Amino acid sequence: MRNAAFVTALLDALGADVVLTDPDRLASYRTDRAMFCDAGTPCAVVLARATADVSTAMRLASEHGVPVVAQGARSGLSGAANAIDDGLVIALERMNQVLEVDVDERLVVTQPGVFNADLSRAVAEHGLFYPPDPSSWEFCTIGGNLATNSGGLCCVKYGVTTDYVLALEVVLADGEVLRTGRRTVKGVAGYDLVRLFVGSEGTLGIITEATLRLRPAAHRPRTLAATFGTVHAAAEGIAAITRSSVVPNLLELMDGTSLHAVNDAYRLGFDDNVGALVLAQSDAPGVAGEEEIAAIAHHLRDAGAYDVVLAADDAEAALLLTARREVLTAFEAMGTTMVDDVCVPRSRIADLVDGVAAIAEKRGVVIGVVGHAGDGNFHPCVIFDGANPEEAERAHAAFDDVMLLGLDLGGTITGEHGIGVLKRTLLERELGPAGLRVQRAIKEALDPDGLLNPGKVL
Amino acid sequence: MRNAAFVTALLDALGADVVLTDPDRLASYRTDRAMFCDAGTPCAVVLARATADVSTAMRLASEHGVPVVAQGARSGLSGAANAIDDGLVIALERMNQVLEVDVDERLVVTQPGVFNADLSRAVAEHGLFYPPDPSSWEFCTIGGNLATNSGGLCCVKYGVTTDYVLALEVVLADGEVLRTGRRTVKGVAGYDLVRLFVGSEGTLGIITEATLRLRPAAHRPRTLAATFGTVHAAAEGIAAITRSSVVPNLLELMDGTSLHAVNDAYRLGFDDNVGALVLAQSDAPGVAGEEEIAAIAHHLRDAGAYDVVLAADDAEAALLLTARREVLTAFEAMGTTMVDDVCVPRSRIADLVDGVAAIAEKRGVVIGVVGHAGDGNFHPCVIFDGANPEEAERAHAAFDDVMLLGLDLGGTITGEHGIGVLKRTLLERELGPAGLRVQRAIKEALDPDGLLNPGKVL
Repeated sequence: MRNAAFVTALLDALGADVVLTDPDRLASYRTDRAMFCDAGTPCAVVLARATADVSTAMRLASEHGVPVVAQGARSGLSGAANAIDDGLVIALERMNQVLEVDVDERLVVTQPGVFNADLSRAVAEHGLFYPPDPSSWEFCTIGGNLATNSGGLCCVKYGVTTDYVLALEVVLADGEVLRTGRRTVKGVAGYDLVRLFVGSEGTLGIITEATLRLRPAAHRPRTLAATFGTVHAAAEGIAAITRSSVVPNLLELMDGTSLHAVNDAYRLGFDDNVGALVLAQSDAPGVAGEEEIAAIAHHLRDAGAYDVVLAADDAEAALLLTARREVLTAFEAMGTTMVDDVCVPRSRIADLVDGVAAIAEKRGVVIGVVGHAGDGNFHPCVIFDGANPEEAERAHAAFDDVMLLGLDLGGTITGEHGIGVLKRTLLERELGPAGLRVQRAIKEALDPDGLLNPGKVL
Repeated sequence: MRNAAFVTALLDALGADVVLTDPDRLASYRTDRAMFCDAGTPCAVVLARATADVSTAMRLASEHGVPVVAQGARSGLSGAANAIDDGLVIALERMNQVLEVDVDERLVVTQPGVFNADLSRAVAEHGLFYPPDPSSWEFCTIGGNLATNSGGLCCVKYGVTTDYVLALEVVLADGEVLRTGRRTVKGVAGYDLVRLFVGSEGTLGIITEATLRLRPAAHRPRTLAATFGTVHAAAEGIAAITRSSVVPNLLELMDGTSLHAVNDAYRLGFDDNVGALVLAQSDAPGVAGEEEIAAIAHHLRDAGAYDVVLAADDAEAALLLTARREVLTAFEAMGTTMVDDVCVPRSRIADLVDGVAAIAEKRGVVIGVVGHAGDGNFHPCVIFDGANPEEAERAHAAFDDVMLLGLDLGGTITGEHGIGVLKRTLLERELGPAGLRVQRAIKEALDPDGLLNPGKVL
């Protein structure tokens, strides 16, 4: 076994309750939820109980030159949390406590292993609101959200993870513990390290605690569903909304493939001939909310919606959103999936959906399109028979085509899932050589031996 | 003359229309608006017309090992833009064009030398809104705002400069031009370099173009003014508002010293016995706005306000805000000034104002307190006789005491003005040794020869 001396040192320092070495258990820490990304089997998994464990493990890894991958719930979609052969995994799943809710300062201090939905519920009890809400919110952790700068459904009005991070505790490559940021709402003393670590996918340090800004509870939203014959028409309706002065708190698009994937399971009752569904919400208070939802309905009807209906009650609204959130799981039941994550300027949404349809036809694969349309952020999902190598090859090609289309439309190859392993080869295409050079210089400054999640992102 | 070969090379490359060498003109580029900060006389000033000029100048400076300071309007309050003896100043004042307003994408592309208020007016013509609004908005540039991550009056609801930056063009230490960020509202490909450059005070690169996110025009705000007998009571009222679910778009505090400094000049008509003034706005639409302003008034009355009145019309509201914005200029007419910029947790505002009063008494100086109270961000301004060395020493001591008080209350030594020269000695106290070490590693990675604004921040 390679790295035996390292594993012995770990066991000596942290004990067998913390350091897993059983091969069967190690195997379950190999991969996140992304398909077709290289993964290895770690030499050990540290089930950290506290920051001190992470620091000790990182210091020993540094001394022994062993690469380290941090993991939350392994729900990521880019392979960023995949283990490395003979490397160490530091799992944050035991560090799952919400440490403090400060109502006066409207902030929460949390460990990284808390599930997003659990954090949201914990602060909601105090009349507060943590907006970033990835579709995976019930089974993704705040630490993973921070590592990838996760978005979600309500970002169109409320922004993404990085917009809510006030302070972080981070274990650095040599095991030192850095506390950066502050509890005040403003502050400009020194460089913004907080937002450098957010979205760095475990390549610059391991986040062990976060102080997150909260908002007052939002008003109860009004929810609208609009059906269209084609996804192109739906995209035009969305563009009309984003051009207007209305800012919905949710504006989602599902194409026919997506809608029909969840229609039966959730008994949504949509006809087979529906080609696209738009979901929108306004949480503006009182009359303003009525006016906003009316304006949204108007734009969607103008774009050719068949039918625009308000959800009858909270239960109906919740059902529609749950169905939207579970699309990826429904796709996984249809075959092997590769989920893309392009984000384009909001005026190019119709071009994106048309382009994806052309790619699906050219490559002979099914691509379901679903996404946070109000942000221009889409998750075209290539669904194929993973057991058929020729089809898998076409699926891969389609996946890359979608990213190149996103770039051609002035967008990005990843709006919220991250680069990980999956999109590394296209990163330079987006950032350019100067951008990549600066990124690498920063990586080397913080992790000179290249031990933090090597082979990911850069 | 030192650096003669460098100046000759600059003149050869850019011409005498671009490169100033006249000593009288050079002298006018020595300092920003901060008092008591070291400044030097530059060997030359490049009046850059375009990014290419900045790149050429930076490349030559790098080849000759000459330090470089970028300047906008020199309205900064921390000495960050002060010139260095025999160094180069790159002035961005000629790069003052708004390049593009994209209404569909709700963004603006601008050169750095545009005044904040000019940019705001340019986008307002399209029904759009650029929120960050430093009090100096009529005479500070967007480039300076980016360099210091400026705040302003409406940040309490709408956030600060960094919250609005989508993409930057930056000239790096070797003269290379980096374009980083994107035009989409979301994107996580690679590290967040945009927010690393924002607030870096010219020490990591020189920003030559910015793509800024905009909002739809806000609704017409309701403006309220409340008078108090003491600043402590006013602070309690503000804390009650920030604890509640109301989010005003402006919540400012002026103590008696501040109010009386502007009362006559603007004919505000407040009595001499008024000890503090709170200004608040709600821009929520319709009934929601009426309810918000009523809730704000209720909290202020509960805290003991003498008098709570709504501005009669837009002109009266504008007058109150102008008076608030011009406080610093009014203080400058009263003596030499040192403006502090502490930000504390919002529940500690009363402790801050009480502590500042104690410091003023202990040091025997006048300190006027004014600030963005809803953010906990205050500008206690020490006003003294600069010609009296003993008094100046006490003023300095009071200034430092205020920062230490801010730190003791869990706050920061700078909420929005930056570190510059003025606050360098206290930076490690705030960031800690690990924080400072990481900051220095990043600086060295991007500027290995230490040519970008040396002696500032770190």
